[in-house]
Amino acid sequence: MIKIVIIGAGNVAQHLLSAFFESKIVVVKQIFSRTPKTILNVKTIRINNFETIENADLYIISVSDDAIEAILTQLPFKNRLVVTTSAVFDPKGVAQNNRIGTFYPLQSFSKNKEIDFSSIPICIEAQDQEDIDLLQTVAQTISKTVCKLTLLQRKNLHLAAVFANNFVNLMYQISHDICQSNQLPFALLQPLILETAQKVAQISPQAAQTGPAKRQDMSTIEAHQKLIDDPTYQKIYALLTQTIIANANKL
Amino acid sequence: MIKIVIIGAGNVAQHLLSAFFESKIVVVKQIFSRTPKTILNVKTIRINNFETIENADLYIISVSDDAIEAILTQLPFKNRLVVTTSAVFDPKGVAQNNRIGTFYPLQSFSKNKEIDFSSIPICIEAQDQEDIDLLQTVAQTISKTVCKLTLLQRKNLHLAAVFANNFVNLMYQISHDICQSNQLPFALLQPLILETAQKVAQISPQAAQTGPAKRQDMSTIEAHQKLIDDPTYQKIYALLTQTIIANANKL
Repeated sequence: MIKIVIIGAGNVAQHLLSAFFESKIVVVKQIFSRTPKTILNVKTIRINNFETIENADLYIISVSDDAIEAILTQLPFKNRLVVTTSAVFDPKGVAQNNRIGTFYPLQSFSKNKEIDFSSIPICIEAQDQEDIDLLQTVAQTISKTVCKLTLLQRKNLHLAAVFANNFVNLMYQISHDICQSNQLPFALLQPLILETAQKVAQISPQAAQTGPAKRQDMSTIEAHQKLIDDPTYQKIYALLTQTIIANANKL
Repeated sequence: MIKIVIIGAGNVAQHLLSAFFESKIVVVKQIFSRTPKTILNVKTIRINNFETIENADLYIISVSDDAIEAILTQLPFKNRLVVTTSAVFDPKGVAQNNRIGTFYPLQSFSKNKEIDFSSIPICIEAQDQEDIDLLQTVAQTISKTVCKLTLLQRKNLHLAAVFANNFVNLMYQISHDICQSNQLPFALLQPLILETAQKVAQISPQAAQTGPAKRQDMSTIEAHQKLIDDPTYQKIYALLTQTIIANANKL
């Protein structure tokens, strides 16, 4: 069995713990967490003191980015494989007693929302081939998609995820606001939202683009601009419309 | 049987024709189309001359917005129920020999992509109660969700759809570009894209927001801004990040 210790008890740490529970080749021996509320399973013991940390094949640090460095300096051992689940953490310049790597699951985790881990891509990074092989084995026990990325690729993947998740969600929120101001149920848009998301699995976003900006339908664009009250939303509408028009003209 | 004539042969017209085919209470007698490529079924005859248009209970005009007025003036009859599938068409000021209404399916239709019409909301509008009832009956034969909207509501719903569909798709495209520039398969983002879309069916977009802007994680935001080459994408990143930060501070 590959022995793992998880450090942290946030959403990612808890989802990882659940995902590893079923594995026949990986066992999470300990989870380091300061809160007694951590949800455990029969295989895992909670610790809240680094003195009691066990010998393991892999340590997964899953804490907020700005807490990683402090954790790394507190680890009471050397030359072991320690990975973070961070999208952006760069170990360069940080005191390293251990072999630092990455184990980054590309998903936005919410508390209390079950997730099928097998569909979540896991991005791994390590210096030595042996460590890469171990991370690959561990990642494959919980996910169908494992990819080895460089730091620069991982940072760019995170940036791409900000557009595809955080900014998309902001678009949903503006849409929600417009519905609310006009006594329209936001649920009316659900089928469209889902279809839009599913479509880019089949055709490129460039080919999937439709709407007044794509058609350069200026009368509808002007009518829309008159409907929007919020000055920030007006700015967003104008900038995104201009961008779609410019993209269409490039083709 | 309720007799319908469809005028137009674009994506919406073709999808409507297919959707009505199974109905036991609605029959599409004719489709007006100038192109012989129109896909027909055994119940429907193609016409390309308004002289041969039959007597029907409902005429559905499904053409581009700027062609609607010309069609309306060519119709060789009076006082019949004529609806458009347009999101934004306003019959005010247009010469009206007939009873003009709306039959607007809220979806982005692509050619060659099957669609389950039953999940697509249909927005209806008409002056007389009798006409509203007929549109409701017709819409219900193909969709589970039918709603009566005013012109202003319909225009705002279309605006909300531009954010939730066209602008969301632009975010996918930028994400796709970033992946491509960094030798990352865009498919890695598919599970995140789908999860983001599905989440807002369960919790509000406001509650679903995550990411560096929401956390006001300025060091990640600055790092992202350095990664982006395209000046337009930089502008979009800055504006949307500022908006999410401002929203978070409002709470």
